[in-house]
Amino acid sequence: MQPGQILARGVLRALRDLGMSGLPEMPLRPRLRADVMAIGRKGEIWIVECKSGRADFRADRKWQGYLEWCDRYFWAVDADFPLDLLPEETGVILADGHGAEVLREAPHCPLAPARRKALTLDFARRAAGRLHMLSDPRPGLLL
Amino acid sequence: MQPGQILARGVLRALRDLGMSGLPEMPLRPRLRADVMAIGRKGEIWIVECKSGRADFRADRKWQGYLEWCDRYFWAVDADFPLDLLPEETGVILADGHGAEVLREAPHCPLAPARRKALTLDFARRAAGRLHMLSDPRPGLLL
Repeated sequence: MQPGQILARGVLRALRDLGMSGLPEMPLRPRLRADVMAIGRKGEIWIVECKSGRADFRADRKWQGYLEWCDRYFWAVDADFPLDLLPEETGVILADGHGAEVLREAPHCPLAPARRKALTLDFARRAAGRLHMLSDPRPGLLL
Repeated sequence: MQPGQILARGVLRALRDLGMSGLPEMPLRPRLRADVMAIGRKGEIWIVECKSGRADFRADRKWQGYLEWCDRYFWAVDADFPLDLLPEETGVILADGHGAEVLREAPHCPLAPARRKALTLDFARRAAGRLHMLSDPRPGLLL
């Protein structure tokens, strides 16, 4: 696993403990994919981007593009990450491969209803499609 | 696998070919669980109940309870099933463990928007939760 994927594993575990159902590698539009998207009991949508270090963070020119796709936006970083790099108006999750915790809550910027509806449907279909692929793998079938 | 689960496998494959993302064993309310629920690109919701034979069908006292949880309702049965047992106002899918095909389209009875929204959210969270459990199994953790 890549360092970012290791953080994502811990993030997904912690999200579930928070009652948020998470899905890794969720495409939002062409060339924009959330490391983790999660949906809560009332339909609230979070996006978590996992950054393995300073270089990985600095290379990211598109993070503000995620803000319009979620109610709350978080970074997930490990304990060695220089936290003062992270923009103030974002949430912060401290993560490793085994778990994670919210260090700073993210501001709440509610999605428009039509986008929430479309995102929830896309998430539902994608999660079910991946589950099916894992549950009933068939050689030669590409998804 | 039980006979009904074998049919469900074929049904799930065929649904995907139809652009419907299916999830087996979807709870709707206490003591009511759909064998297969599926969501289409525009959010349409189908329920498919799998019946392995005459006795299995006759034992089902609750099928009409499914109608209020979907836009279209189908039975899935195998080639030996006596089709004249099935109520006329329902869809019919002919299935085996490898695939399935729609034999009779189901009437369209659109869900109310609030129920569609709640069902889609529940489906999304459940599919993601099961995917997570398969992708990152942890001993001792019961879901």
